[in-house]
Amino acid sequence: MARDAKYDILFDRVKIGPRTARNRFFQTAHCAGPGSERPGAQAMLRGMKAEGGWGVVFTEYCSIHPEADEYPYTSARIWDEGDIRNLSHMCDIAHKHRSLAGVQLWYSGGHAPCLESREVGRSPSQFQSPMFATRTVYGYEMDEDDIRTVINMYVEAGKRAEQAGFDLIEVSAGDDTLPIQFLEPRFNRRTDRYGGSVENRARFYLEVLDALKRALGDRCAITTRFEMDTLHGPEGVEAKQDGLRMLELIRTEGVVDLVSVKIGDYVEWGEDAGASRFRKSGWVTPFVKQAKSVLGAGIPVVANGRFTSPDDMVNLILSNVADFIGAARPSIADPFLPKKIEEGRFDDIRECIGCNICVSKFNQVGQITCTQNQTMGEEYRRGWHPEKFEKTRSPSSVLVVGGGPAGMECARVLGERGYTVHLREAEADLGGHWKWVTRLPRLNEWSRVVTYRQIQLEKLRNVEVHLGIGKMSADDVLNYGADRVVIATGSRWSTDGTGPGSAPIPGADASLPYCLTPEQIMAGKPVPGRRVLVLDAEGHFVGISLAEMLADQGKDVTYVCDASEIAEYGVFTLEAGNNKRLMFEKKIKTYRNHWLAAIAPGKVRMTYLYKYGPDLIGPEAGHGQVPRRDNGGDFDLEVDAVVLVTTRTSDDLLFRQLKARKPEWSPNDIQAVFRIGDCKAPMQVGQAMWEGHRLGREFDSPHPATPLPWIRERQLWGGDTVPKLGDKRPKVEVD
Amino acid sequence: MARDAKYDILFDRVKIGPRTARNRFFQTAHCAGPGSERPGAQAMLRGMKAEGGWGVVFTEYCSIHPEADEYPYTSARIWDEGDIRNLSHMCDIAHKHRSLAGVQLWYSGGHAPCLESREVGRSPSQFQSPMFATRTVYGYEMDEDDIRTVINMYVEAGKRAEQAGFDLIEVSAGDDTLPIQFLEPRFNRRTDRYGGSVENRARFYLEVLDALKRALGDRCAITTRFEMDTLHGPEGVEAKQDGLRMLELIRTEGVVDLVSVKIGDYVEWGEDAGASRFRKSGWVTPFVKQAKSVLGAGIPVVANGRFTSPDDMVNLILSNVADFIGAARPSIADPFLPKKIEEGRFDDIRECIGCNICVSKFNQVGQITCTQNQTMGEEYRRGWHPEKFEKTRSPSSVLVVGGGPAGMECARVLGERGYTVHLREAEADLGGHWKWVTRLPRLNEWSRVVTYRQIQLEKLRNVEVHLGIGKMSADDVLNYGADRVVIATGSRWSTDGTGPGSAPIPGADASLPYCLTPEQIMAGKPVPGRRVLVLDAEGHFVGISLAEMLADQGKDVTYVCDASEIAEYGVFTLEAGNNKRLMFEKKIKTYRNHWLAAIAPGKVRMTYLYKYGPDLIGPEAGHGQVPRRDNGGDFDLEVDAVVLVTTRTSDDLLFRQLKARKPEWSPNDIQAVFRIGDCKAPMQVGQAMWEGHRLGREFDSPHPATPLPWIRERQLWGGDTVPKLGDKRPKVEVD
Repeated sequence: MARDAKYDILFDRVKIGPRTARNRFFQTAHCAGPGSERPGAQAMLRGMKAEGGWGVVFTEYCSIHPEADEYPYTSARIWDEGDIRNLSHMCDIAHKHRSLAGVQLWYSGGHAPCLESREVGRSPSQFQSPMFATRTVYGYEMDEDDIRTVINMYVEAGKRAEQAGFDLIEVSAGDDTLPIQFLEPRFNRRTDRYGGSVENRARFYLEVLDALKRALGDRCAITTRFEMDTLHGPEGVEAKQDGLRMLELIRTEGVVDLVSVKIGDYVEWGEDAGASRFRKSGWVTPFVKQAKSVLGAGIPVVANGRFTSPDDMVNLILSNVADFIGAARPSIADPFLPKKIEEGRFDDIRECIGCNICVSKFNQVGQITCTQNQTMGEEYRRGWHPEKFEKTRSPSSVLVVGGGPAGMECARVLGERGYTVHLREAEADLGGHWKWVTRLPRLNEWSRVVTYRQIQLEKLRNVEVHLGIGKMSADDVLNYGADRVVIATGSRWSTDGTGPGSAPIPGADASLPYCLTPEQIMAGKPVPGRRVLVLDAEGHFVGISLAEMLADQGKDVTYVCDASEIAEYGVFTLEAGNNKRLMFEKKIKTYRNHWLAAIAPGKVRMTYLYKYGPDLIGPEAGHGQVPRRDNGGDFDLEVDAVVLVTTRTSDDLLFRQLKARKPEWSPNDIQAVFRIGDCKAPMQVGQAMWEGHRLGREFDSPHPATPLPWIRERQLWGGDTVPKLGDKRPKVEVD
Repeated sequence: MARDAKYDILFDRVKIGPRTARNRFFQTAHCAGPGSERPGAQAMLRGMKAEGGWGVVFTEYCSIHPEADEYPYTSARIWDEGDIRNLSHMCDIAHKHRSLAGVQLWYSGGHAPCLESREVGRSPSQFQSPMFATRTVYGYEMDEDDIRTVINMYVEAGKRAEQAGFDLIEVSAGDDTLPIQFLEPRFNRRTDRYGGSVENRARFYLEVLDALKRALGDRCAITTRFEMDTLHGPEGVEAKQDGLRMLELIRTEGVVDLVSVKIGDYVEWGEDAGASRFRKSGWVTPFVKQAKSVLGAGIPVVANGRFTSPDDMVNLILSNVADFIGAARPSIADPFLPKKIEEGRFDDIRECIGCNICVSKFNQVGQITCTQNQTMGEEYRRGWHPEKFEKTRSPSSVLVVGGGPAGMECARVLGERGYTVHLREAEADLGGHWKWVTRLPRLNEWSRVVTYRQIQLEKLRNVEVHLGIGKMSADDVLNYGADRVVIATGSRWSTDGTGPGSAPIPGADASLPYCLTPEQIMAGKPVPGRRVLVLDAEGHFVGISLAEMLADQGKDVTYVCDASEIAEYGVFTLEAGNNKRLMFEKKIKTYRNHWLAAIAPGKVRMTYLYKYGPDLIGPEAGHGQVPRRDNGGDFDLEVDAVVLVTTRTSDDLLFRQLKARKPEWSPNDIQAVFRIGDCKAPMQVGQAMWEGHRLGREFDSPHPATPLPWIRERQLWGGDTVPKLGDKRPKVEVD
């Protein structure tokens, strides 16, 4: 199928200073985890996007100097010869696919935790960073020597970047990096020519851009990512005030070849990488529109906004809002998005669902994963290609029991690999528990998990999907006639309030009308009375979504969690701030660090988890007691209903029955029975699908239940190191 | 000076199964950060302790299989040939110093986040792990095949460990690892021969030990680290019940060569690695005593308890409580502690202060540092030896201005290196702000920071300490006659409530009687009235200590912080739990995620930090507003006094004055002026001392103000990797 000509505009070649992008698809800098420490993973992750048609691919934020050391968080770094060597591999692969490679130069000054380098950053004025729980992170106020020194750092880093092969040198002026610190009154209380008026506060930023332009502007494009509104009011950058004024200065100074627009500083990162629970595709466009109106035709503008619809993209270009479609998450969910548009394969696009699992892994100081794209981060270390599947040499028949996300993904991969697959689902529709999850408030976009896979399964001639067949018994499976069996029967919520590593709650029983599990509520079990308590040990999206849903239904909702943070996984997905704002706006009362000691009709017994004293009673403590003094702290709360968002249990009965009847497998010509996803252990939905995907990829390995080894990028003793002791540091100081 | 013969007992050779330790100093497994990924750092960190006299040195916890992948936290790993190669370097260095090398085999099952391997652990029963904010971590219930499989994992890992050169193979049965999961009713709800009675619940643990003994017991010592009380009451392991019974079984089965005792599971890690704020040296001894009474003479016992006093150690041995002095933190603070005892150099021992900064870095997924020992973690990457200093070839004269921790440490290192040093302090005593910090409740042990350095400075003939000289002016410095100058004048607390990246609080003014800074309170400024509010943005120890002190004085204390956690750095130092218990016990009211909008006589205006709605107003938002709906949420609180534990500012006036007069340096024969510590930027005290230490070490480098490059251990593109794609996985499955 060829594409409609109306999408041709997305494939225009566009000049960016001395370089030319082959199309308008621009992968903006995004965190991933490999940095300059895992060069293979870095290169193949970005390189896969280049192969998939992204005309520009960027590193994550790239520290220019050990003073701006983000460790323990993983940035790229362009500090030394080793970084040049490691990042040049990424550039080579981007170039092989005719894409431009970009690097985002990053200096965070007084915000840098520097837990590896142990150095101290510089800032316009001295302040305590509000960014990290690390605490006690301060920089020091720069004098004019320091300003020259840091500008030299940018230039030296830019030169190293050029040596590595980067085409675009981007200066970060957002996420609290130094250029925007100078612009923001809350970080800049200077009274010299770098403080006071907006022109003065803009000076440092423009000087950095100018210095890079002079040093490298004839070979590399000098670009910038500018945060035109920090969303903090007058103490930060406000779009209509300093934001637009800064863009005017950028235009009139003529120091950049392209501007990429963002909003929201580091604390408000959730407004830049807005989760779909709070931000729908295109939410930044009103800001970008204003930016473009100032920058005019001469300076190309990149607009992010989690765009996955080709029509939206075309509109953005035609309405002259932007010149490039910026994307981080859509390029993670589908590295081949541009190519699929180019080839008119619109229904093959694997759309980002905005769950922010990607960034949640980075925020845990881990490696990126993606709910929608199971190959993300696996390109190098496991050799997985998102669009290519090795055909099996022994195309046996496979029965997959359970059409939830894990079962669907496993069937899809097995299908792509040439197996004959029967995917059998008890209920009338595919999706498993995801069917009710996506009916929770704000989660409708998450249904793309199901629709993408449904469409792909329909295209696979060797995959049959059988719906509404009811539960399969062990006999059904043994007699089915498949060579191999995959069990993907999911999990269910605890009905007795069993907590993480704790016992059931006395009185908790979901067969009572006033105790309800999430599944029961979504299946229509009525929630009695007005006062509802939601008990949350899941800590991600289920408890908070049910609390919102019930509040929207007019209930008087109290939210109780064991953690110190409301829906604490939201800290990682960048939703914590808006979660708390939402709770407050909807008048949901909250208790943190509490649990229920008992549930009775009309009331619960609340217990504070730190009610015991800090002193420890020795080994002589009486049997059956916590060996601390009990300082009280339990109290009653009158409620009409309790929602038990506590823990889950695998629905693994079928698997266990089959395992117990292993002697019958061979007589029934069954070679193996596997389990995947929640049926093995309750897990995040992306991980459940990864399990299905992995099993499909390695279905003909010697022991498919167990993953094959992957490449571990790390120092091996005896290997080379850069730097070595005694190496010099590049000179940047002015004295 | 030779030591007293009474300490000889600490240097007895002690048999551990087929191996013999050269003395009783036993470095138990402790986290550090290098793992098997940074082999040079790992080897030199542990190797330095071997050189310093520790007869046994251990890795950190060492994962036996990718199913027990602790990533993003850094464990050692003994998964493959690469790990053998990397850890064998550590063993070689330990052996070079005649010490035994130990490895702690670790399998955490259903608690393992597995964010690198993406595998799923196995557990006695299925449960949601209560351990990590990662959430949704579950394993799956083991059947008998799984039990055999995991035992094989231990044995295969043990064999690889032996290949690497380890002498002691330790099985972790604590911190929620699998052996203790089987023992704990809350994690083990089985009804087969592995569940129910204590003998059944102990079976798995004993089988693991037995399998290792059979496979390796003739060459390696098989040891275990057992948590005899999880401190959770009857759902966990209680010392007097299952704890002692388990030790009896260990004795009667004869399957181990040594037992190392601990208390407190992972959630209660703060009871094992007890911070000195809550636990004084020897707090575990009552438990160890009971353990020894069961194990008898036949099985050597290791007692931890943050022992730094040689007399306490001798008593422990003589009273037959233990056979080995276990240590993690004391060996971090002073790797040469045994050697110093051996040589009778008692006042050279750099005693651990129990601040838990070491573990706080691990908990941030970083690399270890130590407040007391600035060379910790720098042994390999910067080549620093804790006891050896390179003599300078140009022994010039140095003036150090400021006798706080940074100035003292810098003077000490410069003195060791042969410089002529004058350390000049305005006040009558050394210590700077640390003098009042150590007068806060529970912090007296932290004064070791000052006393250690004071004693060392007294020993250095080329260092003069001048006290009570008042503040030095720029003229004083210029006329002093020193070749080089180091400014270490510290920092002070904000008097106007300036928060992290936020403006001063209207009405905040520490010149008023009802607004007080920490320094003012500790200098004796009276706290008026009964109702006191402590506003905490420091988030570590100052706010909470002042709150406790004022509560102990009979004040009615309210603690307010911007963070979601009370004294949130305590999450990293393992103090968060006891901090909350303390607050509750002392009836201190707490508000999280709040700040002060204003301070007035008799009251404050409180503001909830998430009072604005989650929806975003576009770029059209009015000037001067946060672009969100204000949902209210401010309220008044009547208080008589406000303590402003907000942010700090460097006392850098002298440095800036000198910098401004740079043309006068040369005429006054001054070559350079440096600044270190809080005077550069407020920082943790250990970091301030590190700054002083680093400057001293690199004082004759080309640009001493800037650190020299260090060795970065990481993958370099083109270097070897282990595994490679297509490698096999060691067979452990029983099918």
